[in-house]
Amino acid sequence: MSSTYGDKIKVSLFGQSHSAAVGVVIDEFPAGVEIDFEKLQSFLNRRAARGAISTSRQEPDVPEFLSGFTGNATCGAPICAVIRNTNVRSGDYKGLSNTPRPSHADYAVGCKFGGFADFSGGGHLSGRLTAALCVAGGICKQYLESLGITVGAHIYAIAGIKDKPFDPVKIDKDTLLQVAAKDFPVLDDSAGQNMRERILQAKQDCDSVGGIIEFAVTGLKPGIGSPHFGGLENRIAAAVFGVPAVKGIEFGNGFACAELTGSQNNDSFYFDETGTVRTRTNNSGGINAGMSNGMPVIGRVAMRPTPSIAKEQDTVDLANKTDAKLVIHGRHDPCIVHRAVPCIESAVAIAVADAILADQ
Amino acid sequence: MSSTYGDKIKVSLFGQSHSAAVGVVIDEFPAGVEIDFEKLQSFLNRRAARGAISTSRQEPDVPEFLSGFTGNATCGAPICAVIRNTNVRSGDYKGLSNTPRPSHADYAVGCKFGGFADFSGGGHLSGRLTAALCVAGGICKQYLESLGITVGAHIYAIAGIKDKPFDPVKIDKDTLLQVAAKDFPVLDDSAGQNMRERILQAKQDCDSVGGIIEFAVTGLKPGIGSPHFGGLENRIAAAVFGVPAVKGIEFGNGFACAELTGSQNNDSFYFDETGTVRTRTNNSGGINAGMSNGMPVIGRVAMRPTPSIAKEQDTVDLANKTDAKLVIHGRHDPCIVHRAVPCIESAVAIAVADAILADQ
Amino acid sequence: MSSTYGDKIKVSLFGQSHSAAVGVVIDEFPAGVEIDFEKLQSFLNRRAARGAISTSRQEPDVPEFLSGFTGNATCGAPICAVIRNTNVRSGDYKGLSNTPRPSHADYAVGCKFGGFADFSGGGHLSGRLTAALCVAGGICKQYLESLGITVGAHIYAIAGIKDKPFDPVKIDKDTLLQVAAKDFPVLDDSAGQNMRERILQAKQDCDSVGGIIEFAVTGLKPGIGSPHFGGLENRIAAAVFGVPAVKGIEFGNGFACAELTGSQNNDSFYFDETGTVRTRTNNSGGINAGMSNGMPVIGRVAMRPTPSIAKEQDTVDLANKTDAKLVIHGRHDPCIVHRAVPCIESAVAIAVADAILADQ
Amino acid sequence: MSSTYGDKIKVSLFGQSHSAAVGVVIDEFPAGVEIDFEKLQSFLNRRAARGAISTSRQEPDVPEFLSGFTGNATCGAPICAVIRNTNVRSGDYKGLSNTPRPSHADYAVGCKFGGFADFSGGGHLSGRLTAALCVAGGICKQYLESLGITVGAHIYAIAGIKDKPFDPVKIDKDTLLQVAAKDFPVLDDSAGQNMRERILQAKQDCDSVGGIIEFAVTGLKPGIGSPHFGGLENRIAAAVFGVPAVKGIEFGNGFACAELTGSQNNDSFYFDETGTVRTRTNNSGGINAGMSNGMPVIGRVAMRPTPSIAKEQDTVDLANKTDAKLVIHGRHDPCIVHRAVPCIESAVAIAVADAILADQ
Repeated sequence: MSSTYGDKIKVSLFGQSHSAAVGVVIDEFPAGVEIDFEKLQSFLNRRAARGAISTSRQEPDVPEFLSGFTGNATCGAPICAVIRNTNVRSGDYKGLSNTPRPSHADYAVGCKFGGFADFSGGGHLSGRLTAALCVAGGICKQYLESLGITVGAHIYAIAGIKDKPFDPVKIDKDTLLQVAAKDFPVLDDSAGQNMRERILQAKQDCDSVGGIIEFAVTGLKPGIGSPHFGGLENRIAAAVFGVPAVKGIEFGNGFACAELTGSQNNDSFYFDETGTVRTRTNNSGGINAGMSNGMPVIGRVAMRPTPSIAKEQDTVDLANKTDAKLVIHGRHDPCIVHRAVPCIESAVAIAVADAILADQ
Repeated sequence: MSSTYGDKIKVSLFGQSHSAAVGVVIDEFPAGVEIDFEKLQSFLNRRAARGAISTSRQEPDVPEFLSGFTGNATCGAPICAVIRNTNVRSGDYKGLSNTPRPSHADYAVGCKFGGFADFSGGGHLSGRLTAALCVAGGICKQYLESLGITVGAHIYAIAGIKDKPFDPVKIDKDTLLQVAAKDFPVLDDSAGQNMRERILQAKQDCDSVGGIIEFAVTGLKPGIGSPHFGGLENRIAAAVFGVPAVKGIEFGNGFACAELTGSQNNDSFYFDETGTVRTRTNNSGGINAGMSNGMPVIGRVAMRPTPSIAKEQDTVDLANKTDAKLVIHGRHDPCIVHRAVPCIESAVAIAVADAILADQ
Repeated sequence: MSSTYGDKIKVSLFGQSHSAAVGVVIDEFPAGVEIDFEKLQSFLNRRAARGAISTSRQEPDVPEFLSGFTGNATCGAPICAVIRNTNVRSGDYKGLSNTPRPSHADYAVGCKFGGFADFSGGGHLSGRLTAALCVAGGICKQYLESLGITVGAHIYAIAGIKDKPFDPVKIDKDTLLQVAAKDFPVLDDSAGQNMRERILQAKQDCDSVGGIIEFAVTGLKPGIGSPHFGGLENRIAAAVFGVPAVKGIEFGNGFACAELTGSQNNDSFYFDETGTVRTRTNNSGGINAGMSNGMPVIGRVAMRPTPSIAKEQDTVDLANKTDAKLVIHGRHDPCIVHRAVPCIESAVAIAVADAILADQ
Repeated sequence: MSSTYGDKIKVSLFGQSHSAAVGVVIDEFPAGVEIDFEKLQSFLNRRAARGAISTSRQEPDVPEFLSGFTGNATCGAPICAVIRNTNVRSGDYKGLSNTPRPSHADYAVGCKFGGFADFSGGGHLSGRLTAALCVAGGICKQYLESLGITVGAHIYAIAGIKDKPFDPVKIDKDTLLQVAAKDFPVLDDSAGQNMRERILQAKQDCDSVGGIIEFAVTGLKPGIGSPHFGGLENRIAAAVFGVPAVKGIEFGNGFACAELTGSQNNDSFYFDETGTVRTRTNNSGGINAGMSNGMPVIGRVAMRPTPSIAKEQDTVDLANKTDAKLVIHGRHDPCIVHRAVPCIESAVAIAVADAILADQ
């Protein structure tokens, strides 16, 4: 575990916010998968900081591939991609290990690794690592697309302002591609406009806001995933909590199912016009007993507000063993939900690709 | 993965609802842990079906330990425990593979394993397997107690009827032990009475209800858990989704954090009177960046209503490729939330024990 | 690792020499494999102690299958088999933890687990555990046979007395089955007779003898196994050293290749009459760069003489911290090489089955 | 498995002979280990090609560390090191996928990955990957040294010309450091001179020679390693077969034990003058039942002659499905045994470090 994920493929993240580079190795990825590198770069760009609603640390994430390809196709050897850290200002983070930022990794990582931890810019725990995650995710997405499977996501809510939800029964590849193409990925652009204004307000308040991302996977045949600990829900959750700021995940109607009766919540089977078994509702989110049932896999992820805010906060001075005040300088996002959409897609894509490959 | 969990310890579940036995092997468990077998049996009894609010399949779950002990202490060798299936009525399940039960494993497992799957009583996907999970969980709980760590849980809600929540800052061992000792584990017994009546109503309606379980871990020192994929949230989620019927998990304030600002949601640090670093709130649920921060670990799990209901339901006839009606006979629980409390404690205890052992 | 083996399938051994039972769980084994249980029992009987050349602890190893089957076919759920320990005389081993047997596990396991270790009869390190290994091995052998792959072995040498070697190019299924059917599995029965006499001599001398086992796998298509650490040699070695008493393994001509030149040692390719690529020699033992090349996989395993001998030996008294004399009572084998043949077949079969399943 | 090794630490190799770089990621390595980078470079230089007895592809292996350090100490985050491939002449390898080199990876990897495999210079299977292995190995060696454990090796034999063996009882750190400091690591320099002449002879003959490497680990406390599949022998073997050209491994007296009796082979315990338990002989190679017993761990590894020789060889033309002749151009080593010494040390050091960390 730790920074390595996967049962069949092994996705191994490395790098720190202010080390020479961040990157990823993907071992046991199948040979012969053609990668469209322009498309991959477009996907990575969806994660990039943009405009006033993001941090002013805006650097292009262009990976260099050190291994794993013959031409554009994977060759069966481990894939290694490296993204250099070009825009490093480590002075911004001086002294943070001593006065840990509330709700940030500083205190826990200091307890874990002692004085040897790299606190600069969040070190290995920085959101910067999601650039590497998205390289792996983008590759897995293209692999899944070659199997007819699409992974997508949208902003479901920011600070309580809600987008329209995906239709759990009808969600399809086209809808997923359309929302992915948007600069601010929501189904209802007027809700999106309200969200953006709320983010700008938070920025002005020296504060931050959180939100919810909804993801979906279409085209998955039934029977993928394993009983008990190898289920799709276990695997997706184990990957998604690897994205910083995630505090909850639910599948299908999720927490809402707790208020329903079985007769309300059960998804009845029927044969559709093509002779395919489907369910009339999809409260199960496409998963029964850990295994796909042929319906879209669907779920939602809760993301807390960015803990790095410019407002003065209470903390402790670990050297002097006194309470202390903290004002965080540096460049931070007033909201990371919109940038996290491709990160959640990546975590889901990696988990689903691994489940498929582990199952064969 | 699949029916095996763990990074350092390996918990391997086996058995089917109607096979000779269910059981568990725990490999790499530390030597020298004294197990109180009476206490373990009391823990297992908390999972047992009881009275009118449970299934009429009521069999004592008394494990036989085949290996792993010298006297009452673990000896370093793998622990194997077996629980015989004594009360087997496989006739009840005839024909279910052909007319899959809505929202149940039948259809997916048939797609996965074909005609070879054991559909009888849910086979390996049966809730019966949680008896084996609880043996492993009860052992891990006693190991954690020897380290000063307590894992507990209560019914947070059934069908929308809510118990009082745990206080995320003050929750302590005593409260956890008190609620565990109750026949129906809620903090507010009048809420508990309402829940029971709601369950009986569901039974009378040939229906079922779902609910939410809240868990907590006290006594965990800061720095446990690993970055990214080895975080406490990843590990706990990967174990908890192994309990049948779980459809969501959240830590700290979970999905509620999505509506807050950073200044509202951040947990400020301070030194308490003993010189210990603590946080004034615990919206993070005791976990920052995947690592414990010294505060109680706290979270909630959504459990759907039992899919096996006595009401007639729509399904498909896979042999004749037509839509069909299904009436499920057999003995089923109108609600499994109360019985699932020790199962969630078990999954959490296994995950936390594994994280501690993997970290050393 | 520890008592669990496998990349795709997970073979988990449990039990101690004098616990209630020994056994094995096999998780992630494919569904739909028909097992011939009589054939499996015949295979297990090959490991049983027989006649004067074996220990007088002679108990039938009849596994009870607790899970994993519908009828005679695997159902996709974990397989659990248990073999009860019926003939237990733990008095024989009193005091051994204090005066460790030379070249035995006692001293090391005491250092590892302290006073909690189960020293009785070798505890979890006993050769008795190979009964459970052979259940898993026999099942994997039948799975491999369903794919046209045969795993076999013979006694290559005992105490320097040599059998005829397998022909590394021509070894085929029929030869493997013929030698497996023998009570004392050698190709040259007169050499076998000499070996048996040498074992009886060792018994009379209150001593023991070691030997070499040669194994072969036929029918493996080229390209199985992975580069570097996932190679067939890595996987087979990692399993075979799990058989007690193994101190070396070599593939193809093994250590002999160190004395040859490249032009002598290289295996030239050619097309045989059926248009199949083959090599004229098989010094590589059917493996190039960790992957099968279509020729028989072949290798040899060195087994030390049984360390438990009746002769007086020097040891230490750990309580009194003095040197001491030791006379081992109890029932022991003057040679375990002939009984270890199915154990080596089992370890090889498990490793090859796992490599095939991991590769898909 | 595949190109990833480790139970606790995860060593993940990447790169191809003619890709942009080779490298390694080490996840879960402990924080706070001070690395002497000059010493590490000296270790890497021992693997480098030198003079007439090596290939004329002679490039400095200077790793760039992209992550994992604060100053010279590990920070708990994954370590990534990259070594650029500067001296690439891919034209040398044209057409090799079609006419596979005897005893080389070409044919098997083509069967495994089809036309997508990178055949150039051996691709991911190239000996060039051992540069990355040695970075991980050199770091693990320094970690072990901080615990008082030394890993060393020497050339035991080349083409049948033997060095003096290590004394299995008396081998110590000083001897290991002395032999490591030599340009041609043998104990007996006159034997070394004969070996070098034999290598030059092979080169002149357009041929190659193999050999044996002996390794030792001193300073290991007793009780390291786990029963059955997690034993030191299993772990070391699983790592060592990851070094190209290895065809056998033995521990202690290895294959020689097969000709001895128990009374000859058993290692008697005694208390030495410091009150430490030791054995008078060390035929077990410091390992009983997979666990260290406090004596030096010792073993030998068989390395086949380099398969790439300049002599004309028989092979097949896969496109035309005819037999064919092959003359290999390019730059190759007439012997890799002397360059492989630090590679074997690396594999052993990684395995031992992992066993220690997995055991805590």
